[in-house]
Amino acid sequence: MASVGKMDAQAMRAHNAQRLLRAVRKLGTVSRAELARATRLSPPTVSALVERLLDAGLLEEKGEGASNGGRKPVLLGFNASCGIVIGANIGTNAIQLAAADMNGRILKKHSLEIIKDTRPRPLLRRLATAAQKALRDFPHTPLLAVAVGAPGMTDVARGIVIEAANLEGWTDVNVEAILSEQLGAPVIVDNDVNLAALGEQWCGRARGVHNFVFIWMDAGIGAGIVIEDRLHRGHRWHAGEISHINVDFREWNVDFGAAGYLEFYAGAVPKSRPTRAPRLNASSLGDENVLRLGAAVANIATILDPELIIFGGRLAASSPDLLPRVREVASRIVPNCPEMILTELGEEAALMGSVRLALERANESLYESLGQRVQVK
Amino acid sequence: MASVGKMDAQAMRAHNAQRLLRAVRKLGTVSRAELARATRLSPPTVSALVERLLDAGLLEEKGEGASNGGRKPVLLGFNASCGIVIGANIGTNAIQLAAADMNGRILKKHSLEIIKDTRPRPLLRRLATAAQKALRDFPHTPLLAVAVGAPGMTDVARGIVIEAANLEGWTDVNVEAILSEQLGAPVIVDNDVNLAALGEQWCGRARGVHNFVFIWMDAGIGAGIVIEDRLHRGHRWHAGEISHINVDFREWNVDFGAAGYLEFYAGAVPKSRPTRAPRLNASSLGDENVLRLGAAVANIATILDPELIIFGGRLAASSPDLLPRVREVASRIVPNCPEMILTELGEEAALMGSVRLALERANESLYESLGQRVQVK
Repeated sequence: MASVGKMDAQAMRAHNAQRLLRAVRKLGTVSRAELARATRLSPPTVSALVERLLDAGLLEEKGEGASNGGRKPVLLGFNASCGIVIGANIGTNAIQLAAADMNGRILKKHSLEIIKDTRPRPLLRRLATAAQKALRDFPHTPLLAVAVGAPGMTDVARGIVIEAANLEGWTDVNVEAILSEQLGAPVIVDNDVNLAALGEQWCGRARGVHNFVFIWMDAGIGAGIVIEDRLHRGHRWHAGEISHINVDFREWNVDFGAAGYLEFYAGAVPKSRPTRAPRLNASSLGDENVLRLGAAVANIATILDPELIIFGGRLAASSPDLLPRVREVASRIVPNCPEMILTELGEEAALMGSVRLALERANESLYESLGQRVQVK
Repeated sequence: MASVGKMDAQAMRAHNAQRLLRAVRKLGTVSRAELARATRLSPPTVSALVERLLDAGLLEEKGEGASNGGRKPVLLGFNASCGIVIGANIGTNAIQLAAADMNGRILKKHSLEIIKDTRPRPLLRRLATAAQKALRDFPHTPLLAVAVGAPGMTDVARGIVIEAANLEGWTDVNVEAILSEQLGAPVIVDNDVNLAALGEQWCGRARGVHNFVFIWMDAGIGAGIVIEDRLHRGHRWHAGEISHINVDFREWNVDFGAAGYLEFYAGAVPKSRPTRAPRLNASSLGDENVLRLGAAVANIATILDPELIIFGGRLAASSPDLLPRVREVASRIVPNCPEMILTELGEEAALMGSVRLALERANESLYESLGQRVQVK
């Protein structure tokens, strides 16, 4: 009891407010009496906290419930409009952007073609301008967090894109610093395929799946790895750089460049024939490249033993035959071949993941700030 | 406060006893006054709990501390002899066994040659007999947990060895049921290479490393994968079955059997030449097989981006040249080649890991049982 006794009234109030808000969000629409039962807080404590959370705009009244004989109780719910988040994904062809409320409901979506200038500052300025424009429709709603996906290796802790080979001049770009200054909110940056995995788990085909791999097959080839519900990003943020998987040991000494072995042979824009048009049809892959992909996927499967492998990107989506062929090859190589399916979110997987990541960050801020919000004036 | 208020005195006492015992084990040797400060429990609460933990044999007096003017305080410490654990590893050539106290100090070590009969029941009976013999020297110390490593795929949740190809008749063997009946203590079973990784992190070269891979190269080739300090065992307990890594896609359709591609070519007892003597010298591997190993290790590195790869097993240890050669090949293939080193624990890595796993299980029991142990009589 000693440590509890030492918590001062203010810290206790913040702690109780967190419990209360979590309970409301879990239960949906709820009366004060139900809240007291759910949180095991006393009815007077609940009433006092509810008043403050209503004043702070975090709760709102949602009509009346059924009477138990006496007065009908006022029902309460979370006010999802108490904050807004922005998710964005920087692709090689477009910047996608979405604004969502605190329940993750998408309020606006927007796509910007990347016409010419992919250098960091101009590109991020366009992104920030588009975000500000999207926010103009919600002038009274605070922006709580921004999350951005980038097509390259990303130091998530420091908010830096280490290298994005398909964008011009993207080496050690501090996206967090640039965007948070322009947008005045916390900014997180992550690799786009990591975000696609997150998106797929949030609202795609990996719902309820704790261990899976998302493989992106487009101009670039990469993977997002989810282990026990968490993205595995690796010791130097390189995890999932599967394009470097080698399935022909005799070519160990060949320099495939930053793109790596798989992109060189089997990317949608293969480095082995850079002058040709992108392969938007998997049937033009050629049998050898299907074997290469199958062997690479087999290697991923036998190292990680995921429950599921989800494929996305133009190449993966271009032909219904590709996945069965890849899986046939992989299942000859390894005994534990997992289920393989196409993304449900298509080109929006990474965008949805960025919204999800922004929501996580926004919720952290929200719960941290509760202490101030429920102080007695 | 409501939920705390509802905790009854007994639950509170158990909770406080856990805090106290953890504090003693963290601090080493400590006075009652220091314990009160460290736990923020009141001095009378500390005194009462200490008496009960002394009676229960979990604490012991360790002499007197320096005086602060008054009476010299009696110092207290954890009684590591309050329980004993057994770790064992079933190899293809021997069963290793160790008994340790609750601080992980090894009290006894023993190795049994596997002479002929590797069938589950006879082998496990020998293991149990050896364990009982080791325990005879500690007749008053309760056996709190047993952990066993097995050279095969293991369902850790159910305590079953699914398949151990190098032992006779080891398919779906319920090691947990057989041994816990014979030894009267909780039994955990895990793959031997997983345990080697655990051992290396406990007292070998992966101390303080949170993300690493332990690669075992012997008759079998396998890996233990540690991600964020936890073993990654995979969706169907197959994770780390790296012998199935294929680095020659043109051989996708060749049946390498349960042993897999790498063991077939590059194991210490290669399936590609089963009549010859085991390779106990890596120089007999041949250049192509070094390339195969290098490419496989590169694939592991680019998928997982570990901080460190540790190698163990007779083949890995047989030549100081092997690791540098493997690393040279791997670092040509992937840009993010991690450090590669030999195990510090040699043939005992898995044994140490089994002791570590048994200790974790024993500590769970210990802390769970505190409630009963500190009850007022």
